Amino acid sequence: MERAIVPQTTIQRLPLYLRCLLEAQAQRMPLVNSVEMAEMCGTNAAQVRKDLSYLGELGTRGIGYDVESLIAHISGVLGIAERRRAAIIGFGRFGGALLGYSGFVERGFEIVAVMDSDPAKIGTEVQSLSGPIVVSSVDDLEDVLVESHAEIVIMATPAPVTQALADRVVKAGVRAILNLAPVRLAVPDEVAVRQTCLSTELQILSFYLAQKPL
Amino acid sequence: MERAIVPQTTIQRLPLYLRCLLEAQAQRMPLVNSVEMAEMCGTNAAQVRKDLSYLGELGTRGIGYDVESLIAHISGVLGIAERRRAAIIGFGRFGGALLGYSGFVERGFEIVAVMDSDPAKIGTEVQSLSGPIVVSSVDDLEDVLVESHAEIVIMATPAPVTQALADRVVKAGVRAILNLAPVRLAVPDEVAVRQTCLSTELQILSFYLAQKPL
Repeated sequence: MERAIVPQTTIQRLPLYLRCLLEAQAQRMPLVNSVEMAEMCGTNAAQVRKDLSYLGELGTRGIGYDVESLIAHISGVLGIAERRRAAIIGFGRFGGALLGYSGFVERGFEIVAVMDSDPAKIGTEVQSLSGPIVVSSVDDLEDVLVESHAEIVIMATPAPVTQALADRVVKAGVRAILNLAPVRLAVPDEVAVRQTCLSTELQILSFYLAQKPL
Repeated sequence: MERAIVPQTTIQRLPLYLRCLLEAQAQRMPLVNSVEMAEMCGTNAAQVRKDLSYLGELGTRGIGYDVESLIAHISGVLGIAERRRAAIIGFGRFGGALLGYSGFVERGFEIVAVMDSDPAKIGTEVQSLSGPIVVSSVDDLEDVLVESHAEIVIMATPAPVTQALADRVVKAGVRAILNLAPVRLAVPDEVAVRQTCLSTELQILSFYLAQKPL
């Protein structure tokens, strides 16, 4: 499939645009222009037009964008026109919260497997929004990923074990990891990693609080 | 307080260095050199030395860094030598998981208030790791922030109401916000905002999955 290279900063704004469009759809707006989009998204109209121009000729000058077709188009670019299957490794408090997080389902993601190393959790049935899931052992990680057809792995694991588990995830053929552990993962170039750690975010905020004059 | 300007990229790595040092401390290492630090943190030694050089003359050439004193120093720079007080707005599934997240306490943060708009939740007592907290109404946001002396607010709120609540948080004098809602916040320059949304992260991963040749 030939496609123009879309800048990473544009990619990062596409989910935001999609959310704004879904809001416009909920408000029964048939069309939306770049000024309205920019207002909803907290950016500026030139930015919106430039970002969307990477996706093809989508709007009509002086009229705007057709909300329904732009939703379909961005969903297609984001690869979420169909559901994507994700597995969670680490069923602690965070992993548990993720399992019931409606935002994932609304955005087109389904949790298809949950793994943990705790014998007390392994084999128990837990409720996801798409139905019950039996917690698997991380010992069976490779089989679980193959059998569940997971395309994305969410690592909600303790920092010290995260890299070793990620190595196994990559070897099992998964090409997308969302890492919630406070450790920077080393993965091959062909694997996409997004990293987010809430404690780290708080520490960065704390730094700014410490720096600023009262 | 006079201080050299520390680059933002360095600031973002300081929590990672701190975590590695705490690991070294747990392993009873009295000293650690930049090569060891780099290995633990998944970066390179030159980067470690450069980042730490912004904080002053901390190591001894050929010997390394004293683990205890570097922990104390980075904690001081990050402003977490003493506990920082944080309030959570939005006590849904995520807000609830945050309340029991031991990572916050380990990193020096205490949840001192929880707010929600749901009458069924307001007034109920919930367990944080530092003791019970009564859920307050967001209607009383300003009073709650003042009385709890919260320095940081964590927004775990539905997207459409987040900006309006953040405006009130800023007016109440809070200068640091961790925003977990999928909406970009507009705040005055003197307020630090960190933004993280897990659905957005999954959508970005999905984009890469859609782009890459199989």
